[in-house]
Parts: sequence; structure tokens; C-alpha cells
Amino acid sequence: MRDVAIIGVGITKFGELWDKSFRALITEAGTKAILDAGIEGKDIDALFVGSMSPGRFIGQEHVGALVADSSGLHVMNIPTTRVENACASGGLALRQAYISVASGIHDIVVVGGVEKMTDVIGGEATDILAMAADQEWEAFFGVTFPALYAMIARRHMHEYGTTREQLAEVAVKNHDNGLLNPNAHFRRKITVDSVLNATMVADPLTVLDCSPISDGAAALVLAPLDKAKQYTDKIVKISGSGQASDSLALHGREDICTFKATVEAARQAYKQAGVEPKDIDLAEVHDCFTIAEILAIEDLGFVKKGEGGKATEEGRTRIDGDIPINPSGGLKAKGHPVGATGIAQAAEVVLQLRGEAGERQVKDAEIGLTHNIGGSGATCVVHILEVV
Amino acid sequence: MRDVAIIGVGITKFGELWDKSFRALITEAGTKAILDAGIEGKDIDALFVGSMSPGRFIGQEHVGALVADSSGLHVMNIPTTRVENACASGGLALRQAYISVASGIHDIVVVGGVEKMTDVIGGEATDILAMAADQEWEAFFGVTFPALYAMIARRHMHEYGTTREQLAEVAVKNHDNGLLNPNAHFRRKITVDSVLNATMVADPLTVLDCSPISDGAAALVLAPLDKAKQYTDKIVKISGSGQASDSLALHGREDICTFKATVEAARQAYKQAGVEPKDIDLAEVHDCFTIAEILAIEDLGFVKKGEGGKATEEGRTRIDGDIPINPSGGLKAKGHPVGATGIAQAAEVVLQLRGEAGERQVKDAEIGLTHNIGGSGATCVVHILEVV
Repeated sequence: MRDVAIIGVGITKFGELWDKSFRALITEAGTKAILDAGIEGKDIDALFVGSMSPGRFIGQEHVGALVADSSGLHVMNIPTTRVENACASGGLALRQAYISVASGIHDIVVVGGVEKMTDVIGGEATDILAMAADQEWEAFFGVTFPALYAMIARRHMHEYGTTREQLAEVAVKNHDNGLLNPNAHFRRKITVDSVLNATMVADPLTVLDCSPISDGAAALVLAPLDKAKQYTDKIVKISGSGQASDSLALHGREDICTFKATVEAARQAYKQAGVEPKDIDLAEVHDCFTIAEILAIEDLGFVKKGEGGKATEEGRTRIDGDIPINPSGGLKAKGHPVGATGIAQAAEVVLQLRGEAGERQVKDAEIGLTHNIGGSGATCVVHILEVV
Repeated sequence: MRDVAIIGVGITKFGELWDKSFRALITEAGTKAILDAGIEGKDIDALFVGSMSPGRFIGQEHVGALVADSSGLHVMNIPTTRVENACASGGLALRQAYISVASGIHDIVVVGGVEKMTDVIGGEATDILAMAADQEWEAFFGVTFPALYAMIARRHMHEYGTTREQLAEVAVKNHDNGLLNPNAHFRRKITVDSVLNATMVADPLTVLDCSPISDGAAALVLAPLDKAKQYTDKIVKISGSGQASDSLALHGREDICTFKATVEAARQAYKQAGVEPKDIDLAEVHDCFTIAEILAIEDLGFVKKGEGGKATEEGRTRIDGDIPINPSGGLKAKGHPVGATGIAQAAEVVLQLRGEAGERQVKDAEIGLTHNIGGSGATCVVHILEVV
């Protein structure tokens, strides 16, 4: 397999974007990535698109072809593939794009992630997102995603003494980071008190423990490492890629306080990259709920199991901490247009490794990690990116 | 890139399978493929699943993880990826699986395709399938798939003198083949008269020009060619793989009587395999409507543009003809559970190349081709398979 580089990134504003369509969002992100890479349309060999449920969000499947069409690349009859793995659709699309370049079948590949979630009414979005869980054994009985993660939070509190305030600290930190990110959905400071006193969604999680329903898109340009320098000097290498699954429903697991898919995907990625958790300078992890970030930093090996809450409370995961987590604001503050999330995570890490992250720049960042989850941990994909 | 072999195939009965769920269907097909290959669950490195719109057909996205779960492979935390490209989802899942083995990242990979379409009511299935077209520029204005293909048929008749009877001959031939396939949805003989006099769907296409709404699943086991002999002597090589796109809506094309995505995907596959159309002993092509098979045999280079109808009428595409097309019965008679179709096509070609196709066996078959279309030709994937 060939080494693969990311040579361009593009991202839209995330949020409730009433004036921007699915087509407009992905085309904007793709165009930005292409301009950033210094390539032209004719250089592109293939497209990959991550999107979770456009069939229900916008009444449109076949969004691979749609994206080629809306970006004008269909005139080249470019091969275009959509990947769907719930909220890990973006990360998995990146992995498929990576494998296609690594294999030698394609050279320059654009991979995008996109979701337009705010065109549906009221509880419909929650109903759609519940399809990432087990419809027959979870959603059918009324369990939505906040409820699944609330059960995980309760168990983590019971097993490890994690406190309600520690969960809130994840949201407070990610909102502080979001204030520094011009593209973030939420750019306002919150406090532990405001999290605790916000509207309850699923005990113990309030609305401020939950990532929002967002519109947005992100895109990356991939190239073989040995050809990347033809286009740009701003080269970041994909040094590790790991992917794993777990039971779709939580009841199928021995322990709901550990996501085995994260542990296994991370093991593969660390092994391929030849690094350990202590070598990672920053990580974008899947904080769909505050408890999810605590699980992630434990399962990725940044802290011991059970110590995620404490580490967060102590500020170790802040931008100036010893393991900065979600400097972008994470899903919580940057927003969570599901199909876009995995690509946006990689875009943030690339900007950090290039030293282009502005006010939220992590100092001396050389190795970064992305962690993208589908459902309540039934899919996980981890990538490790390095400065060349 | 490594050479890749198909070492196992499995297929379920296609049809209105009221007593079989999505989970049951894909697990049955996967189990059959695994047994056929002589491998065990622990040998499998990854799963790929093609499915078009389970989010609307069965209220379930995240079907990659669901399939790993329902087949028990989640206990190995196996990486599982869903690919969606409308009715080409199966063929594209095969291509992603092929690339992953060719790249060296995985050895033994199972790729399945599945759709459970008959649990929705009345016109709902047509509404769901319309999402493979352009929702904003086609479906919104009331154009369904039969209508899109009816317009293509009318234009083909106008441009090339293709007759209504020649279209019907495609259905008659595929029903004759379906009679010989125990897994086919329809196993009854029809005549040109019965096609012409059937209920009109979209002039000139009657209900007997249209493929049915089916339930079903199919699966393949892939392995590096140089390791395939460890498991089985029944080895078929994937010698070519091509993929291309076109505008999502028909109005974006210069000529609707040629699917440029087919021409380009075929060009890639022929080039990689080092063969020409005349070398192909049989093909499974995407006959979602009778006119689609006529376009396919022209665009794949088996006959000249405009002569597809005549070639069909002359019997050249029958099992004993000079270029047997859809010996399985095709989408028309075998059935069209959309996500399963691309995998089922490859399964049929593998059985033919092994000489295991029973009453529908094509004599001396050594090289076969599969042709899987998404929408009205916005995605096409072509594979060429060869006896080793």
C-alpha cells in the first residue's frame, strides 16, 4: 500500500443554515478543499461522500451521483461512491477514500461529508437519528439516542464515581473552544451551572449535554504522498487508519462503559502509525453527548478507564492541557451535521498540524487523531494524521 | 494491487418473502457464501454491505453494523461498511470490497447486498425508489422511474426504429430464463402479446416491461488470488472493475439513448481485464426496464448502437445465442431487491463460470460481465470475472 496525504481541506459554517441547500453546502466545502489543494477539477480521479440519512432528511438517496452532478464533475463521468455508517459515515468515507488511494486504483480523490438536518419538523430529526440505533430492539421501545447515552452516563457514574459536574465540564470546555472557531454552530460561553439547570432531555443529560441538529459540510483532497508535493507544500500524512464494529444495541455488550469498537479501531491505527496514545498532540473525538467524550478519551488510552471525568475537570483536555480534546469545539459546540462530522474532524486536525488553527491553535502539534462513532458505538473509525 | 478472487457465493430466494426479515435474508445469504467458500467466521477480516434505502424501507440505517451484529461477527469487532449508490449499491459494495482486498488492507472479505422492499404500503415503494432520481428536478414534478425509462424508450424508438415488440422480447426472454432459476421471483412464461396487453405503467412500458419490487439478499466471499487455493478449488478471478457517473437528472445529458456512465465504466473494466466485448461469454446486465437491457447491450459494445432491439428479437441474447444476456432471468424475472442486485449478478456469473448454473448453464462460459446501474444511469459499475 502507498502512503497517502491530505493536501486540501474545506469546511462550511455549521449551524441552522436556512438559506443553504444540501447541494450548496457540499459544493462549497468541495470547492474550498480543491482551491486549498491547488488542484483543478480535471485532476480528480474519484469522489467519496459520507452522508447518513439524506433519504429521510431531504428525500434524496443516490447522493454520490448528486454531488458529482452539483459540482460539475459528472461531465468527466467521475466514479462517485456514497458511504453510510450512521454518524460515522464521514469517517468511513475518508477510510474508503484512503484505501482507494493507498491501493493505487486512484491518485487524487476528493472525499466529502454532508448533512442537511434542519429541513425536517420537530421530533422528526430525533426519529431519523434513532435509525442509527437498533430500530427493532431499542427505538421501537421508545429509546432515543439521548436516552441510550443517559444510561451509559448513569452506569459510568455508578462504576467510577464520575460526577454530574464532570459531565458538564466537557460541554463548558467545548463551548469555550467553539468561541474560537468561526465555523462553529454555537459561539457562546456556558457554565457548569447553566448545563445543570438546562432543560432535561434524558436524566442526567440536559440539552446542554447534547450536540445539536446542524447543517454543514466538509471536504478533503487526498493524494499519494509521493505526488503530493506537485500540488502543495502543506502536506499531512494519514499514518494510521482503524475501523471496528460492535453490537448494534447496547444490551448486546458485556460493559456499556467501554466502547470496544473504539478500543479496537484505535489499536489498529496506533499500530499502523507506530505511535502510542502519549504521542498524540491533539484529538478530535466524537462528543455527541458529554459522556461520549469521557468514554472516548478513556477508550483511546489518553487516560485510564474511569478517570475521564476527573481529567476533564482538571483541565487536562483543554487547548493548553496535556491532551487537548476537540479544539474545534467538537460535536457539542462546532455542531454535528452527522455525515459531515468525520470529515470535519480530519479537517480540524489538518489545520492544527499546519499551524493554521488561529486562536484555537494547539502549540507544537505534530500528530493528531480523529475518532468518529456511529450509533452508540456499533461503528468506530480512528485516523492518525502526522506532519510530514 | 493484488489479484482478487471470488471464492464463495450465496443467494436467497427473491420475491415477496413475507416470512423473512432484512436480518434473516442477509444472514442466510452470508452463511451460504461462507459455507460455499469453506471458510469460518474467524477467517473474515471485513464486511461490506450494499443497501439502497433501508432507512425508508425498514426504518433502519447503520445496516453495516446491523449485519455484523445479526451474523454474530460483531464479537470479533469486525470492520463493516455500508455502501449506497441507489440500485448500484450492490455493485459498488463489491467494488469497495475488491479494492480493499486488492490494496492489501484486508484478506478475506464478505460482501453482501440486501433489500427488504415489500414491508411498505402501496405506492410508497415507488416513492422511495424515486429518490434514486433527482428529487428536486425530476421526482418533485411527478416523474417516477417507469416514466424516465419510458421517455428513453420513446426516444430510442424514434432515433433507431426500435419497435414495441422488440422491447417486449426482452421480457419474454428473461421470463424464459427465470423459469430455469429456482431462486427467481417470477417463474412463469409470458409472450409478446401478454406484455403488450398488460396494464400500462408509463407509455410505452406496461407492467411486464418493469422489474418487480422484491425482497432478497446475496453475498460473495473475496480473497487474494494467491491465497484462494487454501480454501477452495472453485476460483473465479475479478479481472476488471470500472465505475463512472453521469448527471443525476436525464435533462443534463446530450443524448438519453446512451448511458455514458456505462460506456466509461465498461471501458475501464475491459482495459483492466485486457479483453474486448467479443470475448465476453455471458453478461448479467441491469434490465430494470426492458429498454434498459437494450441500452446496456449497446453501451457495453455487444451490438452497435440502435441494434439492441433487433439483436434481442433475433434471439442473439438468449442462453444459446451468441451473447447470452441475463441467464438468471435478470432484474425482470429473477427480481430486483435493489441493494442485492449487483451482488446477485456477480453470484450468477460465478455459478456460470464454475459450470454450476444447472438448466440455465451457458455453454463453455469462461469470461463473464456484470453491469449494475444506479438511477437512470447516473451511476454505473461494471465487473469482468474470469475462470482461473
